[in-house]
Amino acid sequence: MPEKAHYGLLKGKKGIVFGPLDESSIGWQIALHAYREGAQIALSNVATAIRFGNLQELSELCGNAPVLVCDASKNEDVDNTFRELKETMGSVDFIVHSIGMSQNIRKQVPYEELNYEWFMRTLDVSGISFHRLVAYALKNEAVNDGASIVALSYIASQRNYWTYSDMGDAKSLLESIARSFGPRLATRGIRINTISQSPTYTKAGSGIPGFEKMYDYGELMSPLGNATAEECAEYTMTILSDLTRKVTMQNLFHDGGYSSMGATIPMIKLAHEVLHDKELADRVGLDDRHSSR
Amino acid sequence: MPEKAHYGLLKGKKGIVFGPLDESSIGWQIALHAYREGAQIALSNVATAIRFGNLQELSELCGNAPVLVCDASKNEDVDNTFRELKETMGSVDFIVHSIGMSQNIRKQVPYEELNYEWFMRTLDVSGISFHRLVAYALKNEAVNDGASIVALSYIASQRNYWTYSDMGDAKSLLESIARSFGPRLATRGIRINTISQSPTYTKAGSGIPGFEKMYDYGELMSPLGNATAEECAEYTMTILSDLTRKVTMQNLFHDGGYSSMGATIPMIKLAHEVLHDKELADRVGLDDRHSSR
Amino acid sequence: MPEKAHYGLLKGKKGIVFGPLDESSIGWQIALHAYREGAQIALSNVATAIRFGNLQELSELCGNAPVLVCDASKNEDVDNTFRELKETMGSVDFIVHSIGMSQNIRKQVPYEELNYEWFMRTLDVSGISFHRLVAYALKNEAVNDGASIVALSYIASQRNYWTYSDMGDAKSLLESIARSFGPRLATRGIRINTISQSPTYTKAGSGIPGFEKMYDYGELMSPLGNATAEECAEYTMTILSDLTRKVTMQNLFHDGGYSSMGATIPMIKLAHEVLHDKELADRVGLDDRHSSR
Amino acid sequence: MPEKAHYGLLKGKKGIVFGPLDESSIGWQIALHAYREGAQIALSNVATAIRFGNLQELSELCGNAPVLVCDASKNEDVDNTFRELKETMGSVDFIVHSIGMSQNIRKQVPYEELNYEWFMRTLDVSGISFHRLVAYALKNEAVNDGASIVALSYIASQRNYWTYSDMGDAKSLLESIARSFGPRLATRGIRINTISQSPTYTKAGSGIPGFEKMYDYGELMSPLGNATAEECAEYTMTILSDLTRKVTMQNLFHDGGYSSMGATIPMIKLAHEVLHDKELADRVGLDDRHSSR
Repeated sequence: MPEKAHYGLLKGKKGIVFGPLDESSIGWQIALHAYREGAQIALSNVATAIRFGNLQELSELCGNAPVLVCDASKNEDVDNTFRELKETMGSVDFIVHSIGMSQNIRKQVPYEELNYEWFMRTLDVSGISFHRLVAYALKNEAVNDGASIVALSYIASQRNYWTYSDMGDAKSLLESIARSFGPRLATRGIRINTISQSPTYTKAGSGIPGFEKMYDYGELMSPLGNATAEECAEYTMTILSDLTRKVTMQNLFHDGGYSSMGATIPMIKLAHEVLHDKELADRVGLDDRHSSR
Repeated sequence: MPEKAHYGLLKGKKGIVFGPLDESSIGWQIALHAYREGAQIALSNVATAIRFGNLQELSELCGNAPVLVCDASKNEDVDNTFRELKETMGSVDFIVHSIGMSQNIRKQVPYEELNYEWFMRTLDVSGISFHRLVAYALKNEAVNDGASIVALSYIASQRNYWTYSDMGDAKSLLESIARSFGPRLATRGIRINTISQSPTYTKAGSGIPGFEKMYDYGELMSPLGNATAEECAEYTMTILSDLTRKVTMQNLFHDGGYSSMGATIPMIKLAHEVLHDKELADRVGLDDRHSSR
Repeated sequence: MPEKAHYGLLKGKKGIVFGPLDESSIGWQIALHAYREGAQIALSNVATAIRFGNLQELSELCGNAPVLVCDASKNEDVDNTFRELKETMGSVDFIVHSIGMSQNIRKQVPYEELNYEWFMRTLDVSGISFHRLVAYALKNEAVNDGASIVALSYIASQRNYWTYSDMGDAKSLLESIARSFGPRLATRGIRINTISQSPTYTKAGSGIPGFEKMYDYGELMSPLGNATAEECAEYTMTILSDLTRKVTMQNLFHDGGYSSMGATIPMIKLAHEVLHDKELADRVGLDDRHSSR
Repeated sequence: MPEKAHYGLLKGKKGIVFGPLDESSIGWQIALHAYREGAQIALSNVATAIRFGNLQELSELCGNAPVLVCDASKNEDVDNTFRELKETMGSVDFIVHSIGMSQNIRKQVPYEELNYEWFMRTLDVSGISFHRLVAYALKNEAVNDGASIVALSYIASQRNYWTYSDMGDAKSLLESIARSFGPRLATRGIRINTISQSPTYTKAGSGIPGFEKMYDYGELMSPLGNATAEECAEYTMTILSDLTRKVTMQNLFHDGGYSSMGATIPMIKLAHEVLHDKELADRVGLDDRHSSR
């Protein structure tokens, strides 16, 4: 639980966070920090997540925040959610999207054999859902002038990570949607951005096969180390606050410097070692060229 | 018709071009240039395009190139196309994807009111189809080691153009797919890239509402002017040739320098004029802030 | 003068701002906002700037902040400044670099005829000076663990603006220096970033020939309009605060969305108008191809 | 020596290559390939390089190409070189810049302790020299309309490589100069680009401390492996040819896909291994946090 100073950055603001599951979720931390910074909060997730997660606990920690059941891949659900939100809480000053899912990854389908129905579903749940939230918030007049809209992304949108598969494509789509929506929202002073966060130990993220190794890789390649879910929430507070009112259509890296690193010394040395140490090469599967690159 | 020197850059190679319609098509020019550079060519498009376009003429210009009917949004069609291709012509050294379509643009749906079925269809036809071509080429063993795979993109994948709507999102997806496939294809020396081309007067492109104005804008903002379909075909020859065997996973701008321009002098002066000339401001709708940004 | 809420974001911190001149300066606004957010501030500029500017007034507004005379292009000056700073105020938690100057721009030398001594001086004053500040802060042990170091940049580092000339190159260098220093500073938890700010009406900026036109262009092409010096200061507060401790080696756009815009509707319409309206074309010098692109 | 097919891509063209030293040089390979593709070639380097290298041999391989002594950091030298070039060979269709040097790297000065005179010299020799070549080619009317100008760069301009030090900053400057010059040259149909090449075993490159390790790292992280000097020359032929006449102001990655890779499987596994294997961690110096990041 955050013991850090709170500044009242979101005093008088209202907002909704889509996607918190349990304490490990970035969405959970964002909701909690937003509450601490003075905001009134609503929470949302799909029915199963609400059943298996601890949203009730989070709701209590956030001053009995309303919990709205919503499958963000369904137009009607999203429409109802924003209508309900408006009725119970009024229109909001921020919307946070922390939603993603790939059946192809769960089932470990190789990228060259993607199941296209699942691929479409990955794009729908993880990308188009962001468009849907914004569109139905507008339609229901449930978002205020000057609001801040944020979605969580990952650098796989721009560089290749073998195991991240079609989620990398979905994150590209997600980041593009923020840019496409930008000028339309700007006419009302609303801004929209994505935060490209370090690999984070969440219940969702750590389900990805090989997640732990990707986490370790990020840790070694980030000058400041991987950013945690809590740190991400702290950063998100600045993006939701009035101090960033001219920041829009950006993909903001919150990653300990990872995105600007070519290579760290240990990684360069490791590359050298493995090419000259047969045993080590075997251990990491280097000889198998097919799996190696 | 190209009268330019041909160099034999593709001598001995075979390839297939998806998407040529008529002489204005980039795909048409690529097919023709590839043939002139020594390649054996196959052509493909959907049935209606073959009916309404001039693919028979193109086929004749390319030494009676086989014309394969294929809807790249259908798994079975793509599967059959590559099986047939392999049987009639053998496996290929290059694949060119020049396919895109948005119902939301055709119907001029505002971005904030996108029809989600159409949005999914835009992504499927314009983005996922690229994955499908590659996947079924691999499955049918219809692509050779060292091959070059290319899709045509547009800078709306990375920056916002109001009227380009969900096609910008589709192009983001398309470019991401090239990166996601890259390392898998590299194990066989196959490379995959996208070419980000200037706005081009094609039958397809010029159907977009306001296309002419976007073309004019590109012309004014590109130091070398907009690149034509024929110039794009010339450039594509280099990417299909053996001279670029270490170029992969790139989005290659072929745009007269547009992508690196901040502003040209006339555009800066125009901005100044319009802000100080009420009549001009009215002419371009500047007062209507909603449409202005 | 800022009347906005202050949050205590920099409570207990100390910092130094290089480059404030008068109320229009971004550095001035940053110093003032930092003071309001609870920081203890030192100010620095070259002797002439101190003579002709109003640093004494700023000092008073910031609780009698010490004013240190320093030419950031001179090793000895910078060394002395950080020694003096440490003696009078102790070591600091943030350093802000807002320094730039090009003799080639002042004298309106065309880019192809740059005076190389002035070019080197532009790079030294506007780019290398940033390295110098950091290096001598380290050498004098005048910067604390966990500090935040920021320099102000402009998108001309990445795209071409005819009139910005060698300052674009200097800004490229500046942004690179932040990346090069990043991992070294990270070993002590120090982060380093550049903020890429909208064209801003400052005494320095508005001296650039044609500045007003560039400003107008930015205004028309930014969905949220150009960001002001005061808004930049507000944003900078977040980067100096503890809420962004995992953000480093980034170039952060604070520009109303400008950097992600392809084109706004009025600009597209204007391009079209000018190509079909001889009188307008003449007004903005379009026929003169040499000056036009 | 290249045994590859030649296509006559540069038939009838003339050009000059700055920087070839010996057979390992990229510049050497470019000169040789350009000659094979039909161009008439001139060569240039500083006096010491001509003394210690094998430029006489290269000259003979390129049909007795003139060898011009030129220190590209000296205005007068560059001016004379282009005057002489014009007198002996006429004006040229391409100029290749393959020049770089850092005394700070040679002497292994840590980045935070850069010698500023050497830093300025690095920028002058490796960056500003590119401006100088273009400016004096223009001044002497020694470059034809429609020419292609190219400089060799490295991704350290955009991401951090600890050991590459101030050369990363110089490469940022170099790439910016190409963008700054672009529109001015475009008025005459001249294009200007940089090629961002894989780490390459050249006499110059391999002098960098730890070069071999950086090379190995590139090899492991590039899906197609590092690109060789000869492959770079092949690629450069396409950029010098008439097939790329609308490509300008670009930084073109020729790197086996490296720039778009997040991580390869073996590198991810290695990161995991080293964090859980004390002996391996010791071998690559991981415990020493100061040197590790």
